[in-house]
Amino acid sequence: MTQSSPRKVTRADVARLAGVSDAVVSYTLNGGAPVAPATAQRVREAVATLGYRPNQAARALKSGSASTLVLVVPDGDDPVFANAFFSEFASAIEAAARRRGYALYTTASSLESEQLLTRFHEFASRQVDGVLVLPAGAPLDVSALDAVGIPWLQLNTATPQPGLASLGVDLRAGAIEATRHLIEHGHRSIGYVGEPNTDELRYLGWMEACTDAGVAPGPFIATELTRIGGYRAGLALAVDDDRPSALFVASDRTALGLLRAFHERRIDVPGDVAMVAFDGSWETEYSWPALSSVRQPIEAMADSAVRRVLERSDADLTHEVFAGELVLRNSCGQH
Amino acid sequence: MTQSSPRKVTRADVARLAGVSDAVVSYTLNGGAPVAPATAQRVREAVATLGYRPNQAARALKSGSASTLVLVVPDGDDPVFANAFFSEFASAIEAAARRRGYALYTTASSLESEQLLTRFHEFASRQVDGVLVLPAGAPLDVSALDAVGIPWLQLNTATPQPGLASLGVDLRAGAIEATRHLIEHGHRSIGYVGEPNTDELRYLGWMEACTDAGVAPGPFIATELTRIGGYRAGLALAVDDDRPSALFVASDRTALGLLRAFHERRIDVPGDVAMVAFDGSWETEYSWPALSSVRQPIEAMADSAVRRVLERSDADLTHEVFAGELVLRNSCGQH
Repeated sequence: MTQSSPRKVTRADVARLAGVSDAVVSYTLNGGAPVAPATAQRVREAVATLGYRPNQAARALKSGSASTLVLVVPDGDDPVFANAFFSEFASAIEAAARRRGYALYTTASSLESEQLLTRFHEFASRQVDGVLVLPAGAPLDVSALDAVGIPWLQLNTATPQPGLASLGVDLRAGAIEATRHLIEHGHRSIGYVGEPNTDELRYLGWMEACTDAGVAPGPFIATELTRIGGYRAGLALAVDDDRPSALFVASDRTALGLLRAFHERRIDVPGDVAMVAFDGSWETEYSWPALSSVRQPIEAMADSAVRRVLERSDADLTHEVFAGELVLRNSCGQH
Repeated sequence: MTQSSPRKVTRADVARLAGVSDAVVSYTLNGGAPVAPATAQRVREAVATLGYRPNQAARALKSGSASTLVLVVPDGDDPVFANAFFSEFASAIEAAARRRGYALYTTASSLESEQLLTRFHEFASRQVDGVLVLPAGAPLDVSALDAVGIPWLQLNTATPQPGLASLGVDLRAGAIEATRHLIEHGHRSIGYVGEPNTDELRYLGWMEACTDAGVAPGPFIATELTRIGGYRAGLALAVDDDRPSALFVASDRTALGLLRAFHERRIDVPGDVAMVAFDGSWETEYSWPALSSVRQPIEAMADSAVRRVLERSDADLTHEVFAGELVLRNSCGQH
């Protein structure tokens, strides 16, 4: 990676050797205008012969932009992309960035204030055009991140936070719709499997739908929103004499863990227990039975996230809410 | 993103305002030595007050290194991280890079020669320390990529290519082991579901294991290695009067699609058809039935990939082969 040549090879040297203009060298290496394949080949050979390294770092210093976005995902023991919803979402963000001529780089980071701030400085100093953060739960230090001076937006956000540009799906409305669907089809004991947090919006939506319909909500099975968390919840429900006839489950992968436990314990879904999940990733289509789930509109969210972070003005420090869509498959028993 | 101040704010300005040395400013922003939280806070406030942007692009120019690796994954309609194996592999690579003090950035790219070369120039000019490429099938233009001058290594590679630093799992040996397992448990008609390519090593391994055991290999069901490809293959097998009693399936997600079709058509796995898959991602543990599969040793491969690309010398243009491990679950019917 070290440059040992006494004089730095320039673009002009490459142009001379290839017999083209400086501009054609630039077009070949950076795009901007079409270059005939044979000409491009000549330029590349000249680049290789001379050991030319087009210095984007230097150019980025001048232009202040390198046409890149960064997606920050939480690091940790449970790899974020083992969550099918997040991997689909990241792919949609990448596609949305590319449509606007930006490359997306995804990187995992601790979301602890100090570490994330260090990463933001790293991004800003590399002239990254915008950062999208997939939060892990705890609130971020918004003013410290803003002070770095790079436009950023928080994805997957449930509730507005003053001064924070964010977006997310309407968890509460989605939970209400899922629970109501189970109620409308005759269920009178509907459990909720979700995180141990009674302020959480899916919990509140489930509670509200039950209460509005005069159905006593319960049981609430608190667990991690992971496959193994769902599996453990399923094993507990399997030996529960008061097992509800239906479950609203806070995430697809939690539901996938429940399904595994129910299969192992020969509890039929939807015959013994009907289920509606949340997220609507591909997992819901290829599980057995296929899962009814509230689908997050990942393409629309990805498109808005990229657009907003690129256009970001100080006026855009708002929270944007997207509606989920209840997709009915087999696990709720009606289809 | 524009700097409108008449004179550029320097690290010395920040140090003065925060009442610390230049070195402490650097430690706070870039690591390298511990800084007391209160001091770090003062430095950060000074950074915010002055609008200082530590210019890593400029520093990268000097040091020739920014302590980053890039993982290139193929773009395309079928998002690579919707493949559970690849998302687990990427997470393992990220962990291996972090253990060595490197940040990993993952980016999708066309793997067409011209486009990939443009991306390599982009990486090199940003002083990226190494690139790992997850290939999509067609061979890369090794000499053109080498000419960029950035160390790189090709992952997920089946066969050595002269001059190419690469690694991958032993597909043929894994296929032989999987097929033999089915033969040892009495199956005498073992189909193969895989890509329409009779030079492919999993195909050849299946063929070899059958032939060695005096079992006529077949049928060969050619399909895409995707969930929908597996689903289509499963629908075809469901109406096949000569359906084999066992299948070796070239990837987990293909097997997942087969399972969906078999469930829908009430074909019991493993009762009617036993199955062994390939890759061994989390999908195999949470499908129903759980899939027996040849597990790729992703942690060992990730560790070696990162180590090799960071240590890379011109002597290391070799192909490294890893052994898969047959993990037995329920789909093969014996456990």
